[in-house]
Amino acid sequence: MNSFNNVSDSDIQFFQQLLNERCSISHEDLKKYSHDETEDLEVLPQVVLKPNSPEEVSQILSYCNNRNICVTPSGARTGLSGGAIPLHGGVAMSMEKFDKILHIDEDNHQVTTESGVITQVLQEAVKEKGLFYPPDPASKGSCFIGGNVSENSGGPKAVKYGVTNEYVLNLEVVLPNGDIIWTGANVLKNATGYSLTQLMVGSEGTLGVITKIVLKLIPHPTHDLLMLVPFYSATEACKAVAAIFKAGITPSGLEFMERDALTWTQRFLNDSSIHVAENHAAHLLIEVDGFDPEKLMNELAQITEVLENFETDEMLFAESQAQKDTLWKLRRSVGEAVKANSIYKEEDTVVPRYELPKLLEHVKRIGNEYGFTSVCYGHAGDGNLHINIIKGEMSDEKWDNELSTAIRELFTEVVKLGGTLSGEHGIGLVQKQYMDIPFSETSLQLMRGIKNVFDPKGILNPGKVF
Amino acid sequence: MNSFNNVSDSDIQFFQQLLNERCSISHEDLKKYSHDETEDLEVLPQVVLKPNSPEEVSQILSYCNNRNICVTPSGARTGLSGGAIPLHGGVAMSMEKFDKILHIDEDNHQVTTESGVITQVLQEAVKEKGLFYPPDPASKGSCFIGGNVSENSGGPKAVKYGVTNEYVLNLEVVLPNGDIIWTGANVLKNATGYSLTQLMVGSEGTLGVITKIVLKLIPHPTHDLLMLVPFYSATEACKAVAAIFKAGITPSGLEFMERDALTWTQRFLNDSSIHVAENHAAHLLIEVDGFDPEKLMNELAQITEVLENFETDEMLFAESQAQKDTLWKLRRSVGEAVKANSIYKEEDTVVPRYELPKLLEHVKRIGNEYGFTSVCYGHAGDGNLHINIIKGEMSDEKWDNELSTAIRELFTEVVKLGGTLSGEHGIGLVQKQYMDIPFSETSLQLMRGIKNVFDPKGILNPGKVF
Repeated sequence: MNSFNNVSDSDIQFFQQLLNERCSISHEDLKKYSHDETEDLEVLPQVVLKPNSPEEVSQILSYCNNRNICVTPSGARTGLSGGAIPLHGGVAMSMEKFDKILHIDEDNHQVTTESGVITQVLQEAVKEKGLFYPPDPASKGSCFIGGNVSENSGGPKAVKYGVTNEYVLNLEVVLPNGDIIWTGANVLKNATGYSLTQLMVGSEGTLGVITKIVLKLIPHPTHDLLMLVPFYSATEACKAVAAIFKAGITPSGLEFMERDALTWTQRFLNDSSIHVAENHAAHLLIEVDGFDPEKLMNELAQITEVLENFETDEMLFAESQAQKDTLWKLRRSVGEAVKANSIYKEEDTVVPRYELPKLLEHVKRIGNEYGFTSVCYGHAGDGNLHINIIKGEMSDEKWDNELSTAIRELFTEVVKLGGTLSGEHGIGLVQKQYMDIPFSETSLQLMRGIKNVFDPKGILNPGKVF
Repeated sequence: MNSFNNVSDSDIQFFQQLLNERCSISHEDLKKYSHDETEDLEVLPQVVLKPNSPEEVSQILSYCNNRNICVTPSGARTGLSGGAIPLHGGVAMSMEKFDKILHIDEDNHQVTTESGVITQVLQEAVKEKGLFYPPDPASKGSCFIGGNVSENSGGPKAVKYGVTNEYVLNLEVVLPNGDIIWTGANVLKNATGYSLTQLMVGSEGTLGVITKIVLKLIPHPTHDLLMLVPFYSATEACKAVAAIFKAGITPSGLEFMERDALTWTQRFLNDSSIHVAENHAAHLLIEVDGFDPEKLMNELAQITEVLENFETDEMLFAESQAQKDTLWKLRRSVGEAVKANSIYKEEDTVVPRYELPKLLEHVKRIGNEYGFTSVCYGHAGDGNLHINIIKGEMSDEKWDNELSTAIRELFTEVVKLGGTLSGEHGIGLVQKQYMDIPFSETSLQLMRGIKNVFDPKGILNPGKVF
């Protein structure tokens, strides 16, 4: 482990001179930047800095690199793997001043944006021009696009449109030594050297600080249809997922929710719009989108036909935008509802989608063995299952001492199924202890080697990923 | 520059013991593996090895790494940037024995294949199951899928379906030290550590030898329509490209051919199926595909409507599969036809597609300055223009001494337009002298650093990329 220098009074003086009121050591600020949305984790930085230009980021990094002060880039702190926690103190570098959309290029279907723009703000701005940036994590109303790039975020639309990395064309990055580079070019295809762009995507703020982002956009679909399907068996619901794709249909959303995920969220939101019957074990929320309403009706009919092979209760077809919004709000609030309900731990497993039923069985079996219950939901069309392990009746001692063994057992099964630890939340702090399961020591050494190329002194977001 | 050991008699003995008749030093074989399809380049290896398992690749690499013998991985040698040329002699390691498709996973829409499978063979095998692997370089009938991954290949379908990197989920790779790793997992989304998978894609055989590939597949479209549109001005044709996308249409092919590209190819193929009038300056070949014939007719009508704003001659709508095949054969044969016609040099520039008209102007202006003509064609929908610089009347002296200055001037304009050196052919040997144009020295140092992490002794495909 690296040991870093504390931020001294003279360091603070330097930062204050550079940033004026955008340098803060108030307890309120230190507290605010001490955590993200990951359960039960908080480490105070020594100072919070809010640069507003790549040059300022460069000066800060260069200064800290020379003085061996560690720097944790901080976005909107909506992360779920602890990537933004300033584990070793030092500087928390907030990107919130990078909040400008620089150029919506309608001619080329691209947008150039600063990295601290809220994802939904970006989506709405390009939508006004008829353009679409699809990746839409549940936190889209507050998360930053730079954080999305750093975690290779997904969201419900990924099943049809792909995750963040398929949209990132080019990045302006400040390296730990202060050098500013562009990683690629503003083009749709690129065979020009190693893809530094793709390497930055998902690197969780450990290789450089992303200041500008060029994204590919596509025409915004004009219509969508949404249905909610109750199943009597969660396994059956998972099986239906692969069956829909095998029928040649690609929904724009295919979300799975176990019973408790839905009912807890209803309670959390005080929402009674959906009746969940006693014998409903799970629901699929299925969306299709496109440009031709008639075609979408056909697709929904095809999906309904596929679902006739499964035991389902009455399907709900959303009849208004308001009803669609309600259904999506329910889905998007599951994470918060689970959080509000109980002590829990969330895993972000991903497997080939046909293996979902097996994954679900493993979750329940391991839960029985170790004495925890679980609430599962997620982007089933992508094989991405968010597993919320609920403390419930489990003793503190078991929770503290045995849970990581149980999770290790679970991840081992996930990897056997062809899957891996995280589909969209990243490794950050909380999953790094499991990286030996999907990766050999050789692969981990390659990753550490890459880290060392970008950040030889290891000052940038130390203690994350591995 | 590294200096490597020559392959000695005892080395040959070791290889023969390991591989029997799959080790060759016959002049015929050395000659065969001395070149790819890049113009005017040939360097003989000292020995040709044809391993047939990752373990054999591992033994060869480990042996060569210990003895400082360089190894150039060799696919089908259809490359256009010299990536497969054994520049420093040593071992040419042919991947042709890796010719098995291992598993078409219909449940998960994936295929696991060895890397020496011909791309078209793979495409046809998955098509039998109703599945689609879209990237289709012009050489698809002979190139290897492993080569496609190494060069991040594109092809006409990329405009709608994306290039190779969007389909690669996981790779089995043998590192220069002989270690065998899998780079990722068989999943559609992955936020688990740095993406070694994406780093390998487009790395041109310089980081490791790819032995197995897991690819994402999609449902195979059931219908397509094709039209050929003659323009009186090449610039107008380029402008029409962006206009089609701005109208919200995403064709499955949008190819541009300057007049000479088409007429030379007709002569080369002895094909008179198309009448090219005196005043036709360029053509667009436009394809739409999907599952609903009626919708495709609508899309074609929309495209026709857009094209009414441009001066075009009579459009040809392909009426039969045979006519489609003829048109695509013409397009796919342009490269060979140009090659057969004259001494030439091909560039693989890519820009944001709206900038194509400006790019074309730069090409012609620089040609006028330096005294060369050019024939341009390519994947206009992607902004990817293949520029064939034709020697024609240019003196040998000017060709030898001034061409690289002209190309440097061209690439400088390309980068100013937001573009870069190569869209799909790679850097290999012939473009590496220009890498300082799109990349700063800092970025190049990062790439060299990454190379050094994977291949500290630099034995793998030396002299390529940078």
